[in-house]
Amino acid sequence: MRIVLLSGGVGGARCARAIDSWRRTADPSLQLTAIVNVGDDFSHLGLRVSPDIDSVTYHLGELGDADRGWGRAGDSARIANQIERHLPEAAWFHLGDLDLGHSLIRTEMLASGMPLSRVTQRFLDDFGISARVFPVTDDDSPTIVRLPDGPLSFQEWWVRLRADPVPERFEYPRAAAARPAPGVIAAIEEADLIIVAPSNPIVSITPILEVPGVREAVVGARAPIVGVSPIIGGRPVRGWADRCLAAAGVECSALGVREFYGARGSGGLLDGWLVDPVDDLDRESDEPGGSGEHGSERTIVTRSVPLRFTGGREDARIAEALLTLAWSSTQNAEPPDEAKVNRRLDLPHSGI
Amino acid sequence: MRIVLLSGGVGGARCARAIDSWRRTADPSLQLTAIVNVGDDFSHLGLRVSPDIDSVTYHLGELGDADRGWGRAGDSARIANQIERHLPEAAWFHLGDLDLGHSLIRTEMLASGMPLSRVTQRFLDDFGISARVFPVTDDDSPTIVRLPDGPLSFQEWWVRLRADPVPERFEYPRAAAARPAPGVIAAIEEADLIIVAPSNPIVSITPILEVPGVREAVVGARAPIVGVSPIIGGRPVRGWADRCLAAAGVECSALGVREFYGARGSGGLLDGWLVDPVDDLDRESDEPGGSGEHGSERTIVTRSVPLRFTGGREDARIAEALLTLAWSSTQNAEPPDEAKVNRRLDLPHSGI
Repeated sequence: MRIVLLSGGVGGARCARAIDSWRRTADPSLQLTAIVNVGDDFSHLGLRVSPDIDSVTYHLGELGDADRGWGRAGDSARIANQIERHLPEAAWFHLGDLDLGHSLIRTEMLASGMPLSRVTQRFLDDFGISARVFPVTDDDSPTIVRLPDGPLSFQEWWVRLRADPVPERFEYPRAAAARPAPGVIAAIEEADLIIVAPSNPIVSITPILEVPGVREAVVGARAPIVGVSPIIGGRPVRGWADRCLAAAGVECSALGVREFYGARGSGGLLDGWLVDPVDDLDRESDEPGGSGEHGSERTIVTRSVPLRFTGGREDARIAEALLTLAWSSTQNAEPPDEAKVNRRLDLPHSGI
Repeated sequence: MRIVLLSGGVGGARCARAIDSWRRTADPSLQLTAIVNVGDDFSHLGLRVSPDIDSVTYHLGELGDADRGWGRAGDSARIANQIERHLPEAAWFHLGDLDLGHSLIRTEMLASGMPLSRVTQRFLDDFGISARVFPVTDDDSPTIVRLPDGPLSFQEWWVRLRADPVPERFEYPRAAAARPAPGVIAAIEEADLIIVAPSNPIVSITPILEVPGVREAVVGARAPIVGVSPIIGGRPVRGWADRCLAAAGVECSALGVREFYGARGSGGLLDGWLVDPVDDLDRESDEPGGSGEHGSERTIVTRSVPLRFTGGREDARIAEALLTLAWSSTQNAEPPDEAKVNRRLDLPHSGI
């Protein structure tokens, strides 16, 4: 079985790790391919930084700092302290020593002519990671934040300004000229399941879909497409997704994001949607008036499971819920019991 | 009193620290200016590396690794280990984490348009170092090693090939177009004493003198010029100066290097020459036949003192010997007792 994960940020990294961990127990032959946002990529101190690719790589390699959600476990700040001392104007973006070394090596590989996708694969090979991580494109395609007084790079807005103020809009000015990285379209077409990670819909998932051919391949894929809500109880799990959603006119709720993505049957993206129990949308839309207001979303099969990734058994439950949901969405019916799902997906019962 | 030190490599750094340490006891008002070779500078992993400037800066700031003679004390190798793992083809040049961070910051400052001399001064200021360190030029002026099968950068030959084979010659192809960095010529003209550090004559001192105007300023300076032999007992104190001297047809001995520099009165550089007691040249040239063979060198006043820098009282003895020698060379006579030297140089007796 082949799973494609559309991934950005910490939510994407944690979801990738959850699926990969579950895979080892349940189905070692399962192939996971993360297609990753590069809209956050930027150059700092001459180093090419790819935060979303690194987050997913570090998490898959069990190298990531689980508490912070970004950077490397056990990293040090010797060079960051030097920057603070000698070049304080550049200290707003923190890179741990290992994180900086990783970016330095990437920058050198890119300078030698290797495309980002090959650089990323080389790191995966060196770390012994069997999952695949594809930047959605090898081309430079930065997300631009349009503020009242002009445009800003995403990282400057997100990190230096701490996502303040809410921008007028986000732009992906170079996406239209970008080409999908090698393997991206084929992976989507060949997938048995496509998962939209609980990543920022506006600055992680949309920039992936904006690369020409990607949205079309996803929507046209034979695989079911299920998403994981990045919003729990009306608040982002991490970061300032609320401000990104506000700029896009999207309500900061599991329902709002589901509407933003839309149902595949109605020109949108999703067949299924996984929410936290606090956001049980079926219950909501079963209430009088609910079906009318969100009528176009009724074909998105929505299920709930606790959505906080912990690195433990909760992660396996999320992974299993995604597979169950995928089965349900292809049936557009109530899910069968778990044993049936696993049989249909040709998986052993994981026992978790 | 103003001392100018022509400096390269570890010998230059250790000599600078010896003079600076001695200054604090003997004459805090003494101004030390190191004019430093940039022929070894090169770019590695996109980082601008200035080994000779860094060595002297680190030593003056008591930041250097005293045992190795290069790099930072207490440095770590986290990024070097990453390079070894992911980019082994670049691992031949080792940079500790702190050393790498320092070069990263320099690279960023240079990229912002700051000339190397200002970058160097900014580091000195941040480290609280009162001595001045001037790159001889802000222009790129690399030393090229001419091997039978083509040219190579100095660091590739020195570090990667470990100075093997002996090259046909060394070249300074861009020196003729380089301009002395701000303050270099003035420092030489205003100096009360010019010291040629025990640095590699071929790849440290010569590239300094090759920058147009520098050799002329040094030779024409009102200050006495005294040199410290980098060769003790026929062997370099560190590194492969023997192979550099061989390429230039210079005998690897304290005498050979003295002859290479030559007497200022005979178109050369030196008024005085400090050697280790094992190389007592006066004794040699007083022997029958000695005066004839080395006739042109007779006006270089040569004295001996133990020349191994230790970071302790031996360093102060070398510094004092240099001042005594400078006094002698202006007299072209035997040195007076130390108390007289200190009076003439307006220095308190250091008591060492």
